Amino acid sequence: MDAKSSTNRMAKASIVGARGYLGRELVRLLLNHPRIESVVPASRSVAGQSVGAVLPALGHRTDVAFVDPDDAAVTDADVVFLATPGGEAARLAPALTEAGCTVVDLSRDHRLQALAGEAPWTYGWADVAPVPAGSTHVANPGCYPTAAVLALAPALQAGLVAAGPLIIDGKSGVSGAGVAPQPHLHYPEMNESVTAYKVLGHDHTHEIRAAATNLSGQDRPVRFTPHLVPQTRGLLATVYAPAADGVTAEDLEATYARAYAGSAFVRLAGEANTGHVRGGNFADVAVDLDPETGLLVARCAIDNLVKGGSGTAVQNMNTALGWDARLGLDAGPAPAAVVEVAA
Amino acid sequence: MDAKSSTNRMAKASIVGARGYLGRELVRLLLNHPRIESVVPASRSVAGQSVGAVLPALGHRTDVAFVDPDDAAVTDADVVFLATPGGEAARLAPALTEAGCTVVDLSRDHRLQALAGEAPWTYGWADVAPVPAGSTHVANPGCYPTAAVLALAPALQAGLVAAGPLIIDGKSGVSGAGVAPQPHLHYPEMNESVTAYKVLGHDHTHEIRAAATNLSGQDRPVRFTPHLVPQTRGLLATVYAPAADGVTAEDLEATYARAYAGSAFVRLAGEANTGHVRGGNFADVAVDLDPETGLLVARCAIDNLVKGGSGTAVQNMNTALGWDARLGLDAGPAPAAVVEVAA
Amino acid sequence: MDAKSSTNRMAKASIVGARGYLGRELVRLLLNHPRIESVVPASRSVAGQSVGAVLPALGHRTDVAFVDPDDAAVTDADVVFLATPGGEAARLAPALTEAGCTVVDLSRDHRLQALAGEAPWTYGWADVAPVPAGSTHVANPGCYPTAAVLALAPALQAGLVAAGPLIIDGKSGVSGAGVAPQPHLHYPEMNESVTAYKVLGHDHTHEIRAAATNLSGQDRPVRFTPHLVPQTRGLLATVYAPAADGVTAEDLEATYARAYAGSAFVRLAGEANTGHVRGGNFADVAVDLDPETGLLVARCAIDNLVKGGSGTAVQNMNTALGWDARLGLDAGPAPAAVVEVAA
Amino acid sequence: MDAKSSTNRMAKASIVGARGYLGRELVRLLLNHPRIESVVPASRSVAGQSVGAVLPALGHRTDVAFVDPDDAAVTDADVVFLATPGGEAARLAPALTEAGCTVVDLSRDHRLQALAGEAPWTYGWADVAPVPAGSTHVANPGCYPTAAVLALAPALQAGLVAAGPLIIDGKSGVSGAGVAPQPHLHYPEMNESVTAYKVLGHDHTHEIRAAATNLSGQDRPVRFTPHLVPQTRGLLATVYAPAADGVTAEDLEATYARAYAGSAFVRLAGEANTGHVRGGNFADVAVDLDPETGLLVARCAIDNLVKGGSGTAVQNMNTALGWDARLGLDAGPAPAAVVEVAA
Repeated sequence: MDAKSSTNRMAKASIVGARGYLGRELVRLLLNHPRIESVVPASRSVAGQSVGAVLPALGHRTDVAFVDPDDAAVTDADVVFLATPGGEAARLAPALTEAGCTVVDLSRDHRLQALAGEAPWTYGWADVAPVPAGSTHVANPGCYPTAAVLALAPALQAGLVAAGPLIIDGKSGVSGAGVAPQPHLHYPEMNESVTAYKVLGHDHTHEIRAAATNLSGQDRPVRFTPHLVPQTRGLLATVYAPAADGVTAEDLEATYARAYAGSAFVRLAGEANTGHVRGGNFADVAVDLDPETGLLVARCAIDNLVKGGSGTAVQNMNTALGWDARLGLDAGPAPAAVVEVAA
Repeated sequence: MDAKSSTNRMAKASIVGARGYLGRELVRLLLNHPRIESVVPASRSVAGQSVGAVLPALGHRTDVAFVDPDDAAVTDADVVFLATPGGEAARLAPALTEAGCTVVDLSRDHRLQALAGEAPWTYGWADVAPVPAGSTHVANPGCYPTAAVLALAPALQAGLVAAGPLIIDGKSGVSGAGVAPQPHLHYPEMNESVTAYKVLGHDHTHEIRAAATNLSGQDRPVRFTPHLVPQTRGLLATVYAPAADGVTAEDLEATYARAYAGSAFVRLAGEANTGHVRGGNFADVAVDLDPETGLLVARCAIDNLVKGGSGTAVQNMNTALGWDARLGLDAGPAPAAVVEVAA
Repeated sequence: MDAKSSTNRMAKASIVGARGYLGRELVRLLLNHPRIESVVPASRSVAGQSVGAVLPALGHRTDVAFVDPDDAAVTDADVVFLATPGGEAARLAPALTEAGCTVVDLSRDHRLQALAGEAPWTYGWADVAPVPAGSTHVANPGCYPTAAVLALAPALQAGLVAAGPLIIDGKSGVSGAGVAPQPHLHYPEMNESVTAYKVLGHDHTHEIRAAATNLSGQDRPVRFTPHLVPQTRGLLATVYAPAADGVTAEDLEATYARAYAGSAFVRLAGEANTGHVRGGNFADVAVDLDPETGLLVARCAIDNLVKGGSGTAVQNMNTALGWDARLGLDAGPAPAAVVEVAA
Repeated sequence: MDAKSSTNRMAKASIVGARGYLGRELVRLLLNHPRIESVVPASRSVAGQSVGAVLPALGHRTDVAFVDPDDAAVTDADVVFLATPGGEAARLAPALTEAGCTVVDLSRDHRLQALAGEAPWTYGWADVAPVPAGSTHVANPGCYPTAAVLALAPALQAGLVAAGPLIIDGKSGVSGAGVAPQPHLHYPEMNESVTAYKVLGHDHTHEIRAAATNLSGQDRPVRFTPHLVPQTRGLLATVYAPAADGVTAEDLEATYARAYAGSAFVRLAGEANTGHVRGGNFADVAVDLDPETGLLVARCAIDNLVKGGSGTAVQNMNTALGWDARLGLDAGPAPAAVVEVAA
C-alpha cells in the first residue's frame, strides 16, 4: 500500500460523473465520511456551479463547486470514483492510476475483466469478498448483479445449486434508469406502470453469469429479465435456481445463516422488502425451497443507488484503503444508516 | 338455454360482495352494459346505503342502494355475480342456481372443480375458450392465473413447451390485496416498497397448474411467486418455460400471432406494460425466446380488477347468455375501453 | 345552425394536437361517442403512424392513423378540436371556421376574448352556462379556471362574496404539465415531491379574474398559486373568498344545492377528492364558511384532462351541435363514467 | 442547568410512543447522535420485542428492545421524548420532570400553554428562537405550525404584514396521519388522491394563531386548510398574508435573507420543494409579493416527520442541554443530512 492509502490518514476523494444519480449519492455519502477530508465533484455539464445550486437537497451541506472532469483537482486525490457512461471510465482510468490514485470504477468497463481475474482490476464483491487493502483498480458491481449475487452466493459457494439455468427476475426503481429525462420515464407515463425491458441482451446478464461461475466454479446459462416499477429507489431480485439433490430447507437456512453471520450489511429477513433498505447500504435476503419444483427461490432487496452502487463503492474504498468496511456507512456498533423505517 | 338467458332480451344482474374492489368494478361495468336493465348490489356491511354514499365515484350514476345478500332482490336476477370470500360462494351458489340464476363465481371456490371437468361448473377461460351459451355455473379465473394462462396458452396448446417446471413471477398492484386496511398496505408502508409475499403456498399455484395441464395435456410443476408493487391497479406476469427442442423465435411469434389473431381483448405487443391496460379489459402479451437458456419468456399485462376479475366475469356472462363477448366492454367496432393512454 | 350541426345526424370530428394528453383523451372519448361517426387525429410529429402504434392503450380500438395537421381530412369534419400550443390555434381557426367547421379551441388563444364578449368566440362555461346550439367558435376553459369557477360560481352569482381578493390554491397532477419530458418531471424527481410553480404570472390568473368578473359583475384581484403533486391525473382547487356581510353556512349550502341541483356533472360532496373523479367528467364541489375569518372555503376536484379539458370540450361540442350535453360522457340515466371507485 | 444536562457529558434518552412514525424517527436519529449514549424505546403494544423485529429497517443497527412506558428504564434517562397521543403526555410529564428528566413533548398537550408564556413549559421554536440551555419542559411544535411559522416569521417580526387573516394552505404526506391503518389511508384509496380534511376545526389552527400573535404582537384570525397528498413524507405550507403598506419585493427578500442568514437548517430557495428536504432537518423557504393582490405568498417545505417533529425535537434537546443545535442532525461544517438529492 502506498503512502496515499495509509490507514492512519485522512483521504481526498474526487468523483467523475457527479451529477448523475450514483455520482450525487457518492457526494452525499462522502461528505459524511469521517476519513474523507475533501470531496471534488466533477461533471462537464455543470462545471463551475455550486453543488447546492445544482442539487438543492445538498444546499447548506457544502460550498464546493463542480469542476470539469479534466481539472487537475480531480487527479489530486487519493481516491477517484468513476460514475461515468460506458467507455469513458476505460479512457480515464490509466492516467488516474498512473498518478497514484486508487480508482473505483462504477461503470461496466472493467467488470468482466475483473471477474475473469485479469489484472490489474479487482471485482468489488464487498459483502461476499472484500477487496484487499492496497487494491488500486476496483471494478464496482452493477446494481442487478449485486442483488443477484447476494441472493445466490451462499448456495453457490456451498454447492447447493444443481446444473441448469439461473433465472433472475429483477424489479428496479426508476432512478436505476439514470438522470436523463426520457419519454417512458416521464412521470405521467411511468407512474402506475410496470414493464419488463431489454428482455434480450441486457449487459448485466454477462456480469451475473461470470460472477456465478466465479462463485461456484461451474458455468451455467443465465436468464435475466429486468423490470421497471413505479418507485424512485429500491431493487428486488427474485432468483430461481435448481437445488442440488437432497438439499433441504433446513440446509438452505443454515447455509445462509452461516454465510451472513458476521455481515455488516447483509440481513437475513423473513421477507426482502425494498422499503426496508431505502437510502441505506443494507441488503435484505430471504430464501426458500419450493417443494413442488425443487427450485431454490431467493430474494434480495437493496437500494439500487446505495448498496447497488455508491454505498458498495464507498465500502470498496474503505477496504482498499485498509479501513473498516463500515466507515461512513453507518452500520454496526455505532449505527447511523440512512434508512427509512417501516412497520 | 332457459327463458332467462334468451339472446333477445335484457337481463337483470345482482352482485354479492359489491363493496369489495371486484364487486364495485362489476357495478361500474354493469351500469354501463347495454343489455343489463338493472343492477342490484349486495353487501352485508353497507346494506341500506346508497351506492353514491358508499362509493362517491359512482355518485350521480345510479340511485340504487345496497341490499343485504339475503334480500330476495338478489335472487330475482338473471345473473348473479359472487364476489365473496372463499367458502361463501360455495354456500350461496346452490340456492341461486336452483332459482334459475346463471351464477358467475369470482371466488376460488369452484375453479379447481371446473378445471377438472367436474359438472356443473365451467371454467371461465374467456379469451382462450369462451364458455358456451347456456352455461349456468361459471367459475371465473383468478387474476394471476388469467395473466399466466394468456402468456402461455398458445405455446402450451401448440406443444412448444418442453417438460419441466413453469415459473410465474407475478407483480400485482395493491388493489389485488382487497379493500380491507392492513398494516403493510397502509399508504406510508406500501408506497416505495416492492416485496414478494406468500412465496410458498399461494392458492393460485394450484389453479395455474391445473389450467396448464388442461391446456397442454401434460402435468408440470408450477413455481408461482407473487409480488406487491406500489401501484393501485395492474398486474404483470413474467413467465419462464423451457422451449421444446427445435423451437425458434419465429415459431413462437407465428404461433402467438395465430392464436390471438381474432381476439377482441388480447393484444400482442412489443412489450407488455400495465399502464397500457389500466381500467380496461385488454391483456397485452409479449413473448421472446432466450437463446442462452432455451427458455421461453412470456409477459402478460392486465388490469387485475378488470381483465383479472370483473371484466372477464362480464365477458363470461355475455357468452353464457349467448351475447357478443364484447358487450359492455368497449372493444371492437364501437370501442370504448376505459383505458388510460400512454406514449 | 347550419346543416353540418343538425341534431339529427352523425358528425365527423378531427383533433389537431392529438398526441398530447388532451388530444389523446379526445381521441378516447370521441371513439366512444354515439353520434361521432369518424375521428381524424392530427399531429405533425407522428403523422402516418397508426393510433395503436403511438398510443398502445388505444390499440384494438381503432385502426385510424394520425394525419398531418395540414391534411385535407382535418377540415373535412363537422367539428375540429384544437389541442395545440398557444398561438397555433389562433393561426388555424379562421380557415377552419371559414370551411364551415365548428371549432372548439382548447388552447388559451381565444379565452380572454370570449370572456370579454368579443365575437365570434363563446366561452365554454359548460356546467355553468352551456354554449348555445349553433355556436361555431368555442373557447374551452383552462383546467384551473374550470375548477376555480365551479368552486365559486354559485357564491359569486348569488352575491355572497364581498369585495377583496380571491385566492386560488391549485394542486394539479403531472399530466397537466404536458407530454414533453422535462428534468423536473422525470419520474425520480417528481415522485415524492410537492412544489408551487409559476407563483407570479401564470396565464390562468387572467382567465380566472375575467371569469369571476363575468359571473359577479364586479372585478376583483386574483391570487392564483399552482402546485404540482405526485399523481398522474387530478386537480384540486382550494378557493378562499371573503363572504359578504351576514352570509351564513346555511345560505351557502342552500345556494350551492340550488345552483347544482340539476347538474349532470357537478356533484356536491362532503369533501372533494381527486380520486373520486379520476378518468371521468365529474366535478366534486364542497364549500364551508370559516367562522374565524369570515372566509368562504370552497374546494373543487376534477380530472384535469377530462373535466379540465377534453370532457368539457366534448360537452361543449354536444350543446353547440344541439345535442344532449351528456352524450358520450356517460352520466345521467344511462351512466358509464370512466371513474375509479373508492371507499 | 442541573448535573444531568452538563455540556460535557453523554446523555441517556428514552422515547415514549416509539413505535409511531415520530417515535421511530427519534430512534433513528438518536442512534446516530454523537452525545447520546443509550436509547430506550417504549411502546405498550410491542414491549419486549426487539427494535429490529418491529422495525426491520433498523435491524443490525441496535439490539435494544422496546420496553413498557411504565418501565423504570424510561425514567432513568436525561431526556425523555413524549411522542404520545393527546392527553397521555400531560399525564406522564409531571413524574418525569420530578425525577429530573428533561422532557420534550411532541404532542399537542403543552403547546398553547407554552405559547402563552405559562411556566414551566417553553415552546420549542428551534430555528426562530432556540430554547435556552437548562430548559426542562419543552413543548415541541406541530408539523404544520413549524412550516407556517418558518414561512411567515421574518415578515411578522419585521412588521411587514398588515392586519387581516393569515391563510395557510397545507399539503402533507400521508405519514402525517399516523401509523394506524384507516380506510382512507389504504394504499389503493390514498394513491392518486388529493383532498382537504378537517377543513373546520383542525387543532393546529389555534397553535398557528398563538404563534403568529407571539411573533408579531398582534392577534389575527387564521384560516388553516390541511390537505393530504399521495406521498409518504413531506409537507408544504403555502401561506397568504396581506403585506403592510409600502412593502416591496426587495424589502421582503432582504428581510428573509437577514433573518435566515446564519441559520443551520432554514434555506432560502428559489422554490420550496418537499423532494429537497426529504429525510432531513432542513426547511426550504421561498417568498414572493403578488403585485395584483398585495399579498405576500410564502412557501415552506419540510419533512413532516423530521423538521416537522423528530428533528426539531432533537434540536430542542441539543440547545436545552447546552449543546450545538446541529449535533446529530448533520448540518453545518461537517454535514451529513439524511437527504435525497434531486436535480
